[in-house]
Amino acid sequence: MKEIDVAIVGGGPAGVGAALYSARYGLKVVVFEKGLIGGQINSTNEIENYPGYSEIKGMELAQKFKEQIESQGAKIENEEVLSFCEENNKIKIKTTAGDFISKTLIFAAGSNPKKLNISGEAEFENKGVHYCALCDGAMYKGKDVAVIGGGDSALKEAITLSKIVNKVYIIHRRDKFRSVDKWAKKIKEIKNIKTVMDVTIKEFKGSKFLEKIILIDNKTKKERELNVSASFTYVGYTPQTKNFNFKKDEAGFIIVDKNLETSIRNVFAAGDCVKGNLAQIITSTSSGVLAATKAFARINGEI
Amino acid sequence: MKEIDVAIVGGGPAGVGAALYSARYGLKVVVFEKGLIGGQINSTNEIENYPGYSEIKGMELAQKFKEQIESQGAKIENEEVLSFCEENNKIKIKTTAGDFISKTLIFAAGSNPKKLNISGEAEFENKGVHYCALCDGAMYKGKDVAVIGGGDSALKEAITLSKIVNKVYIIHRRDKFRSVDKWAKKIKEIKNIKTVMDVTIKEFKGSKFLEKIILIDNKTKKERELNVSASFTYVGYTPQTKNFNFKKDEAGFIIVDKNLETSIRNVFAAGDCVKGNLAQIITSTSSGVLAATKAFARINGEI
Repeated sequence: MKEIDVAIVGGGPAGVGAALYSARYGLKVVVFEKGLIGGQINSTNEIENYPGYSEIKGMELAQKFKEQIESQGAKIENEEVLSFCEENNKIKIKTTAGDFISKTLIFAAGSNPKKLNISGEAEFENKGVHYCALCDGAMYKGKDVAVIGGGDSALKEAITLSKIVNKVYIIHRRDKFRSVDKWAKKIKEIKNIKTVMDVTIKEFKGSKFLEKIILIDNKTKKERELNVSASFTYVGYTPQTKNFNFKKDEAGFIIVDKNLETSIRNVFAAGDCVKGNLAQIITSTSSGVLAATKAFARINGEI
Repeated sequence: MKEIDVAIVGGGPAGVGAALYSARYGLKVVVFEKGLIGGQINSTNEIENYPGYSEIKGMELAQKFKEQIESQGAKIENEEVLSFCEENNKIKIKTTAGDFISKTLIFAAGSNPKKLNISGEAEFENKGVHYCALCDGAMYKGKDVAVIGGGDSALKEAITLSKIVNKVYIIHRRDKFRSVDKWAKKIKEIKNIKTVMDVTIKEFKGSKFLEKIILIDNKTKKERELNVSASFTYVGYTPQTKNFNFKKDEAGFIIVDKNLETSIRNVFAAGDCVKGNLAQIITSTSSGVLAATKAFARINGEI
């Protein structure tokens, strides 16, 4: 059984912030991340809103995060945390890399893209139904595609796709975007972006691959078809907290106290899986730093 | 009278985070910073704890901050905010660049190095008594100097100075450092760093320039002299809130509500001048981002 000071569940921005500061506090820290360090930023094309980089590719920032935490002494286990429980005022952790005993745990598993839960969505997943334009957009060069959503991510990815594909339809359920002005203005200037507003998405249809999206106009209730080869859904996120038993809200976001501690003692939480987080790289990273500071204070008996 | 959406007082990390996000929200934003954008990070040599940069010079990060907020449309006024007050649910601001009317204000004036308030301190300021090793250390090449304090900054700057000067004394009032292990270990390995622990600093002495520091041993109460050409004080910070009338704690740190709003409506606060802030670049920047998000929500009537 490996004994450590801080176990970090998840290697996205929050886990990175937590790992960096835990290591700098001189703690023995392991980050459990079954995917890539950086998490979802790996599937973001250009990042313009992380202070310190006017423009950086998501994968590049993720790589910098990884190098930085490793250089400071954090260990990365490319494994999954299956469960954890309290034992003698420590946390016993079962992972696909065996068992660990840790003084504290920082839960930073993030959140995953929300689905529409409509007919054809599962059937055509990765066969036209996608959640990451950067990862999968290039396959649709010269084709018509749809982006579903009305927030910053939706509009930014539509702009990205417009440079690759023939035509981008932005499908939004309301008659106004939630995105910042900048993006809403920019998409108006791009000739091969078309907006389809105030509609409900009924179904993904096709034979082997996605061929069309069935829409219902919210005002007229009339059905219409949109012929596209691919669809990219950007309608929010679900926290990755399903298998863990701390106190959560109805949507599954973790409820923490002022020390960022969950309902399980010595288990702190940070980032997008926490209720009320802004879900920006900067704020998630910062919340990881704060969680590490609280874990350190707990280990030192200060809180 | 210039009308704007967000006035930001201070261009340190918190002001930068606030400016970046305000601009991206499409708001008309002016940052008032009488010194350099980046604030105190300009006087930090190597920064290793800002996520995304394993190592970067403070001035370099500050320059990146400046370019980024300007590229996103934030305006920088190299002027001082003298006072502000509520007027018809807006904020009227008097500055050395004239008057402004703003829908919201984000106060991010930061904090300044704390003084020891002892004899000779004011007299020898910039004549041996300094607060920034990077700015002033190079003047003391080959000389003996002191660093006062026991936290991360003190130890890091001692290490920096050890490469420039002949000998560095770290003077600390306790018998143990507050710094992270990493630095406490590192200074032990450096031959020209000597620690002077558990002492009280009584006086700075000299003729035209600083020549010696008078110390009292806390245990024996005996007085001793330390001959140095310069002293660098790193004993914490005082919030720059003296001339402004929001609700503050005894030390002058601003008290904000859950929306980061001060006791003055439409005036938000962020960064090191706020009670309970961790005073790290990442956490200050993030708190500026959150304040901008709240200011935007207020302008939109959401809060």
